[in-house]
This record gives sequence, structure tokens and C-alpha cells, in this order.
Amino acid sequence: MQQLTIIKIGGKVLDDQDQLDAVLADFSAIRGRKILVHGGGKKASRLCEQLGIQPRMHAGRRITDAATLEVAVMTYAGVLNKQVVGRLQGLSCNAFGLSGVDGQAIVANKRPVGLVDYGFAGDVEWINEKLIAGLMELDVVPVFCAISADRSGQLLNTNADTIATLLAIALTQQYAVTLKFCFEKAGVLADPDDETSVLATLNSEEYTASTKAGNIYEGMIPKLDNAFAAKNAGVERVLVCGLDGILVDAGTKID
Amino acid sequence: MQQLTIIKIGGKVLDDQDQLDAVLADFSAIRGRKILVHGGGKKASRLCEQLGIQPRMHAGRRITDAATLEVAVMTYAGVLNKQVVGRLQGLSCNAFGLSGVDGQAIVANKRPVGLVDYGFAGDVEWINEKLIAGLMELDVVPVFCAISADRSGQLLNTNADTIATLLAIALTQQYAVTLKFCFEKAGVLADPDDETSVLATLNSEEYTASTKAGNIYEGMIPKLDNAFAAKNAGVERVLVCGLDGILVDAGTKID
Repeated sequence: MQQLTIIKIGGKVLDDQDQLDAVLADFSAIRGRKILVHGGGKKASRLCEQLGIQPRMHAGRRITDAATLEVAVMTYAGVLNKQVVGRLQGLSCNAFGLSGVDGQAIVANKRPVGLVDYGFAGDVEWINEKLIAGLMELDVVPVFCAISADRSGQLLNTNADTIATLLAIALTQQYAVTLKFCFEKAGVLADPDDETSVLATLNSEEYTASTKAGNIYEGMIPKLDNAFAAKNAGVERVLVCGLDGILVDAGTKID
Repeated sequence: MQQLTIIKIGGKVLDDQDQLDAVLADFSAIRGRKILVHGGGKKASRLCEQLGIQPRMHAGRRITDAATLEVAVMTYAGVLNKQVVGRLQGLSCNAFGLSGVDGQAIVANKRPVGLVDYGFAGDVEWINEKLIAGLMELDVVPVFCAISADRSGQLLNTNADTIATLLAIALTQQYAVTLKFCFEKAGVLADPDDETSVLATLNSEEYTASTKAGNIYEGMIPKLDNAFAAKNAGVERVLVCGLDGILVDAGTKID
């Protein structure tokens, strides 16, 4: 089976040009088929501020109203995606930017309104793996931002970790997939206050225990839920690692 | 030879939601292979104003400095392109948005600095017709905004009429191409003050004579230069027509 590497990079790295250049240089050096999924960073929030759009939050999560969605689309699918694609082109990586609405690559549903209405936030329903594999057969490297759409074409703001996870799972049908979540820490920490306490591996039982003990918390929980979902669904290798872990075996291997 | 229809719509229609809906409904009803190329409209200028970016003009043409380029990319490649794609998806047209930087679909060169430095304005050098034909083989409908890039990945603001023209010319190698420039007037006017004086046909000699007589001027000249370039390079049918001319034979046929 052909190898495929899917790299997820967070939004923060997009705010640091030097770090982004280093990350994209490493990404461009990955051999074989590959996909990049990038988050959003602070640019959208800054643009909202400049345009006088007040952020609406609920329990630390941003509510995507129509004005915020438009800024997210112009920032993530517009300037950030195209800048990343341009930089990769400059590194001789034939990058090809897309969002989920393009060719219905990633179909999502607007999150149902429960106690909170998160607005134009999307939960992924379906990955068009035939289209994505077809793009790679054209020798381009897909670069996804975290904008998807429902079947009626309504654009939706979507979680980038989830997109990377569901892309990886869908593409296990045709590829031996390695999925790396690259972020600011060097991996999953045994002790959240000790940056050097990176776990070499983490299995499901250890994860449950660490969560109960309070050593894994907040943003790490949805990230690791995604990582275990990928592993359990047949993704061959899943790693949570630092931004310097793209080309090497580093960070925490999900077992 | 397989038929391919390329429709260029101007920026103004993007500013009018009802008109845009009608145009996209017609576009979605075109049978067979098709490509949409869209201009920019006023959104980028409005966004520049909101962000306090002063427009720099020379002889009526905007100079694309770095700040203006960023706004153009976020507007054209971001929100406008993805909204058009989303609307077409809602009309069961499997649209797929891209800019020239994606997969080096449209490679341009930064316009050389002569008497005027137009900044990040691109003149198209090469169309990747193999990639674009490959996308259509994946049963998606390419929707191009007018952002291209040079071979180093530098994003460039590009003329949408020219992109449509050069796409049409490049794709004559594989398709029998119809190219329609759809805009606010019903076609080329014999008398610029009489909206009903639409010419059924226009050949090269008539064009030269009309230009000399002052009946064709300003923005119509680069548009018609593009139209004749397409016709002379083997594009089977070239029409300049109104926004209601997408599905019917209307407007002025370039002979």
C-alpha cells in the first residue's frame, strides 16, 4: 500500500513567519504523497477587531456568526491558505490549496442548536476521498484550511484537528497513513508543568488514567480524542509532536 | 472533440446578489464541461477603506502594493471565490474554486517596472492545461478567481479577462472551446450611447474601424483585444454578451 503522510499544523505557527518557513521547508521535504491541514491563528481575530466585529464567546469557544464566518473564510481560505501554498510552491512543493466546499471535498453539517447556538460551525459528515486521492494522482499536494460546507454549499467553520483526523481515516482505504499533529509542545507531557516530560507512547488506558489524574486537560483532550479515533479506525501511525517533528520520529506515538 | 464552455463574469455582478444568483443558476445549467472565471468587484476596495489602506492609482489603474495584494487575495480567493463555489454547490453544480497558485494552474510574471511600478500585478506566462483538464476529469467544475502567482509562489493580482482568454486558448488543445465574456451591456454596441445597438458580429477589420471612429473605447478595448486573441488562437466560438447570455446565443459573436 502506498504511504501517505498527513501533517496538521496549528494556527499559532501561522503567526510566526520564521517558524512557518521552517515547518514548510520540512513539509516540502517529506517524500511521497502528503497532505497539509492548517489552522487559523490570530489573523482572523485581528481582522475582526479592525472591522469592529465583536467576538461572541461561549465557554471559551468562539461563536461563528455571519460576520465572523466571512472573516474566517477570507482569512483561512483566502490569505493564509494561498500564502502557505505560495510558500510551498517556492520550495518546489506543488501545493494545491482547498477548502471543504471545493468539489465537496469535506462535507459538514451545521452544528445543531442545543443549549448553545455555535452559529456557522460545522461537524464533518463525509470526506470525498475519491476526489482527494484523484487530486494526488494529478501530482499536487492538497493543503486544507479548516473551512468546510454543508451539501447546500453553506460555508462552515470547522475544527482543523478533526479535519486532519477524518481525512486520515477516510484515506486508510487507499493508503498506509501516518498522521502527525504538530504543535507548540514536543508531545504529550507526563507532567504538564515539565516541558521535557514527553511521553514516548500513549495508549488508551494510560490516556484515561492521565485524564482522570488531571495531567492531561483542556485543549489536549479533543486533540487526543482525535488522535485515538484515528488510531482506532486504522490509521497506521499517529503522532502528537512538536513543530520540529515533521521529518523525524519525535513526540508521542499513539498506541 | 469534447465541448468546453468558459464563462467570464465581471466583478460588478458579484456586488448584486440577485443578479449573481441568476447568473450562477444559468451557469449551473450549462451542459458538459465548463469553467467559470470571476472578477473582483467592489468588496476589495471597501475592505481596503475599512482597513485604512489608501488606494494608489495610476491612469485609472490601481497599483497593487503589498497591503492591497493581501486584501485582494482574501477577497477574491477567499470570500468571493468560496461563496460562488458554495452557491454553485447549492445548485448541484460540483464547483471547485482555485486561484492560479494552486498546483501552478496559472503561472504569471510580476509586471516589469517601467515608467510605472504596478506592484504585485501579474502577466500570465503559462497555463497548466494538463492540471485543469485533469480536474475536469475528476468531474469538478473549476471556478477561477483572478489571483495567480509566479514560479516562486509570489501571489499576483491578474486581469480576469486575460485569465479567461488564456485558459480558453490553452484548452483548445483538448477541447472545442466556447468563450463568453458576460458583462453589464448586451454586447458590443455600434453606438456607445444606444444600448440597443448590439452588433451581431464583429470582425477584426470592423473592430479596427470602430476603434478609430471612437465607437469602441476605454475598457472595451482590452476586452475585445482578448476576445480577438482567443478567436485568432483557435477558440471555436467567442462571444461578448450580457449576463443573460450564458445559456443562449446572444450578444456579439467575434468573427
